[in-house]
Amino acid sequence: MFPLIKELLAAPPDGRDLLVRGWVRTKREMKNLIFVEVNDGSCFQGIQCTFDRGSSGFTKETEAALEKLNTGAAVEIKGKLVPSPASGQAVEAAAESITVIGEAPAEAVPGEGSLPDTPPYPLQKKRHSLEFLREIAHLRARTNTFGAVARVRNRLAFAIHEFFQARGFQYVHTPIITASDAEGAGAMFQVTTLDLEALAKSGKAPDYAKDFFGKRSGLTVSGQLEAETYAAALSRVYTFGPTFRAENSNTTRHLAEFWMVEPEVAFAHIEDNMALAEDFLKALFTTVLKDCSEDLAFFDSHIEKGIIETLSSVVASKFTHMTYTDAVKELEKAIAAKADLFEFKPYWGCDLQSEHEKFLTEKIANGPVIVTDYPREIKAFYMKQNSDSKTVRAMDVLVPRLGEIIGGSEREENLGRLAARMAELGMKAEDYSWYLDLRRYGSIPHSGFGLGFERLIQYVTGMANIRDVIPYPRAVGQAEF
Amino acid sequence: MFPLIKELLAAPPDGRDLLVRGWVRTKREMKNLIFVEVNDGSCFQGIQCTFDRGSSGFTKETEAALEKLNTGAAVEIKGKLVPSPASGQAVEAAAESITVIGEAPAEAVPGEGSLPDTPPYPLQKKRHSLEFLREIAHLRARTNTFGAVARVRNRLAFAIHEFFQARGFQYVHTPIITASDAEGAGAMFQVTTLDLEALAKSGKAPDYAKDFFGKRSGLTVSGQLEAETYAAALSRVYTFGPTFRAENSNTTRHLAEFWMVEPEVAFAHIEDNMALAEDFLKALFTTVLKDCSEDLAFFDSHIEKGIIETLSSVVASKFTHMTYTDAVKELEKAIAAKADLFEFKPYWGCDLQSEHEKFLTEKIANGPVIVTDYPREIKAFYMKQNSDSKTVRAMDVLVPRLGEIIGGSEREENLGRLAARMAELGMKAEDYSWYLDLRRYGSIPHSGFGLGFERLIQYVTGMANIRDVIPYPRAVGQAEF
Repeated sequence: MFPLIKELLAAPPDGRDLLVRGWVRTKREMKNLIFVEVNDGSCFQGIQCTFDRGSSGFTKETEAALEKLNTGAAVEIKGKLVPSPASGQAVEAAAESITVIGEAPAEAVPGEGSLPDTPPYPLQKKRHSLEFLREIAHLRARTNTFGAVARVRNRLAFAIHEFFQARGFQYVHTPIITASDAEGAGAMFQVTTLDLEALAKSGKAPDYAKDFFGKRSGLTVSGQLEAETYAAALSRVYTFGPTFRAENSNTTRHLAEFWMVEPEVAFAHIEDNMALAEDFLKALFTTVLKDCSEDLAFFDSHIEKGIIETLSSVVASKFTHMTYTDAVKELEKAIAAKADLFEFKPYWGCDLQSEHEKFLTEKIANGPVIVTDYPREIKAFYMKQNSDSKTVRAMDVLVPRLGEIIGGSEREENLGRLAARMAELGMKAEDYSWYLDLRRYGSIPHSGFGLGFERLIQYVTGMANIRDVIPYPRAVGQAEF
Repeated sequence: MFPLIKELLAAPPDGRDLLVRGWVRTKREMKNLIFVEVNDGSCFQGIQCTFDRGSSGFTKETEAALEKLNTGAAVEIKGKLVPSPASGQAVEAAAESITVIGEAPAEAVPGEGSLPDTPPYPLQKKRHSLEFLREIAHLRARTNTFGAVARVRNRLAFAIHEFFQARGFQYVHTPIITASDAEGAGAMFQVTTLDLEALAKSGKAPDYAKDFFGKRSGLTVSGQLEAETYAAALSRVYTFGPTFRAENSNTTRHLAEFWMVEPEVAFAHIEDNMALAEDFLKALFTTVLKDCSEDLAFFDSHIEKGIIETLSSVVASKFTHMTYTDAVKELEKAIAAKADLFEFKPYWGCDLQSEHEKFLTEKIANGPVIVTDYPREIKAFYMKQNSDSKTVRAMDVLVPRLGEIIGGSEREENLGRLAARMAELGMKAEDYSWYLDLRRYGSIPHSGFGLGFERLIQYVTGMANIRDVIPYPRAVGQAEF
């Protein structure tokens, strides 16, 4: 395959022939020189292609092509790779010829046949608001910001696989469509092939025996329970796939469709789980700091100041461990000193709010903190019960600037205790017989956690709205493209 | 983390202390020696743990634990890593102690409280039918066959990422829920939060403005169109995610939910696409032959003879290129010589059947063959139209023993031609305005293909039923677990 601009920029400027393929970002003229910056999305920087009207090879065709060249046009430029006299770039292209492959008109073009007019290319040189770019999500990856988000997202996704593969974890594809509701929580989307128009006309209750799967089915809210079945066979597994919530939350932190990473480890207690989560975050941040330095520098200077320092400090830190009970004591102490410190008053039994989590990590621990042993009433049924019969072996990882980034637990591996807890919560044992089987046959202590991939990207890039870190966000009223 | 059995088996038998954690596969006795084979799913082979009743450290507790030890029990065994006198294994564990972590009763156990009785562990030493194992899909990864499938699946999934990442492709997460129907083809599942019981009672047509996304939405049948938007910004991208078909096909080759890989490359013509597909398959098969040799040896001897030779021959081959028109001529020639050669008679314009594809690759090309330039009537609207106005720049990759494994094309990059073809097919331009924008602004020649991941796993493992190569298959009437 032909070299990407990323590779050209890393090559020695030895006068080698080159072929630049990409999209025009800018065109500038200085006397006889014309500078065209071309970007192909392989890296943040474009390559500067310099045309010299004074050179013998400069033809009328080149002049004509450059004349009508607009931002966004797709081009092929031939030339030589040479040292760049300009600052901020080691190499540039001494351009010899240019072919415009696809134009990007700066003014409206009348439509042919039944087609409407083509409006001017919407991504002109000026800055655009993130709101505007969200409306043209099919073009926004061509901008600096969204190109950088896409590259960071790609690098982190691969880093997740690299991390687990290097440690003997097997990637497991847990099902998307499911007839069981993983946590007894989380609003589910329904999936159906019933004809809703006919259903409405019939006036009869839906007959799920006639639906595609023969029963009421929906989109998964978590792959954990199925991942546990594979951990009980392959020892170390992880999922990385889409999950869904049909919650009517129109916020900058919620998506109806998002990607989740869920490792699950046999023979692992909560201490192993905490160590794994710490190693995991540090490995991801180390990788992105190293391999996406240009993109991160952009985020640090244009999106959120201090991002690089925050990530570096997490890498250099030792995560603090603290029980929920101690965490609440710290929060109560803080509020005793300053009554209006929090919007929500913390108390033993409360779900920690984001403001509490940030306080714990930023003010108490001065770095990442893992809070463990939460009240069982605010955690899921499958978490291992402590002997105090009040708390469970849950663990949430909190990081500065965000709060919770990872939630996990050791799982209840005792059949009787798990079944009793499910009965308390009104869950029917027969609906989960396959899950209970893991405690009937070769049961093992095991632990795992979940990481929301988009929250991770937000943390690394500083992008404030979660809809800006996934190519095509799905939320209330939003399923375009 | 503690070493997996895979790592123990690869370590030198230097008498080092070891801790084996896993599940018992077999227990055998020979005079004073007791052999326990333990598997942890990290590799095909288990580790043999040998207890010696005559050794001074052999306690009553060990005797008692071994006495009641059953297949499927989870154990921790301590001992030393020593050379194995047995054939077929270089090392074994000279076992010193054993702890049963979780039993796997060989006889029914009365249930406590409201729990039903625990039936005997269903995976006893004897062989089980694939049909039976499909019913206990939550336990089947503990068998030789499904453990091997899971490892091959994992290795190929990671190999796909490695292949593309090494070549500058960015991994893009295209949406699962969508309001657009990618190919104008493929039955879609509907996704809704409407209350179907209330809808049926109301007698009124469904009001999609009140549905979660404000319009009728479904599960994606392909991420290609969205991937094209990212290829037009990042040059080289790929998707790897779940896709869906609500087709009522209860066969061994169809799933309602399956994983698909779809690369999309800017500035790539069909020749580049063919080269990429060939490199891709060869890289995947090379990796799996090297890294999953034990698992493949099992498939070759127990599931389908000749699998390894087939994969090796594809790696060593040079893919033949052939137009559809020439392919049909070959088929017609063959049928002229032997009238009843095929069930379906081939003719120009027909969709090639699996029997035709196999004949082309096995009898005509004697190896993989890429068939190009199919009649436009049997291919998707987005494929680049040839100047003959009859064919399109489609390409299908056919391999021995299977037929089509990859389908792809160069895409139509000309706005007018694409719009005209869509109009012919009754597709509304306004529904695809974002897709047409790719041809309005900086349009580029580009190409891509799709690979059904489960079909690939079937090809590599020889597993006959597609439901046996995905952890929890979804098909008509099947959404268990």
